Amino acid sequence: MADTTDRPNRRYLDDFATGQRFESGPLTLSADAIMAFARSFDPQPFHTDPEAARDTLFAGLAASGWHTAAVTMRLLVDSGFGDIAGGMIGRGIEGLGWPRPVRPGDTLRVFSEIVEVRRSASRPDRGTVRMKSETRNQNGEIVQEMTATLMVPAR
Amino acid sequence: MADTTDRPNRRYLDDFATGQRFESGPLTLSADAIMAFARSFDPQPFHTDPEAARDTLFAGLAASGWHTAAVTMRLLVDSGFGDIAGGMIGRGIEGLGWPRPVRPGDTLRVFSEIVEVRRSASRPDRGTVRMKSETRNQNGEIVQEMTATLMVPAR
Repeated sequence: MADTTDRPNRRYLDDFATGQRFESGPLTLSADAIMAFARSFDPQPFHTDPEAARDTLFAGLAASGWHTAAVTMRLLVDSGFGDIAGGMIGRGIEGLGWPRPVRPGDTLRVFSEIVEVRRSASRPDRGTVRMKSETRNQNGEIVQEMTATLMVPAR
Repeated sequence: MADTTDRPNRRYLDDFATGQRFESGPLTLSADAIMAFARSFDPQPFHTDPEAARDTLFAGLAASGWHTAAVTMRLLVDSGFGDIAGGMIGRGIEGLGWPRPVRPGDTLRVFSEIVEVRRSASRPDRGTVRMKSETRNQNGEIVQEMTATLMVPAR
């Protein structure tokens, strides 16, 4: 679990504004991590077997998109962005895509931008924050694009 | 890895049609599995600590939505639906939501329907299949809704 003891005050709806940007720390995915995740959740040859992966669309071992999504969540939670009062709780994902595979040894970072902040009309003690996040590899190439809406309490 | 030795022939684009429905087998999530996934990918108290979870929005331990998504993928891969020529490869997710939390001991199944089959105009040896999947618990309640587009080779 992430050490949160040195974090700034928790963020409320009032602390978010359109155009704010957040950058996560890095995380490197090993071949072992890619294969372990896939054995549990996406047991297909291009995610579990480097030899068999050669003759697939991926032409080599690649992480499951769901692994990339899970790692992205981990990076968001660990970054300051994730430090939302009540927790980082998704109401829904409006788009999620993987334009390029994640390969063993790739180092990922998540770049996020707030695109909408909306207070609830019926319950003004809360609202939603819509964010766009790009997960990029060490070459700056986008491996995941996501648009998500979070539930956030107001101060 | 799933045993695929007794599967029917692999599915091609030609084998899919709008309105086809697929149902997965069941998978039960233990509290240990929920906490283990969350420690790796979504380390927030409502996913990692049954005691601390009581005082959160979830009012008790709940699975990370990304865990539910990963388990849904596993169920799809293991079901006959996942037996697509070249593998089950997502081009993108157009919508993903978690209307209700997954609790320890919940048994999940995935119910999918094909909503669009489209052959590529520029590359007629392939196309896309759009599916809607509902992941339901043992009470028939929806814990995840997803609309996804898969890349599928033609025969």
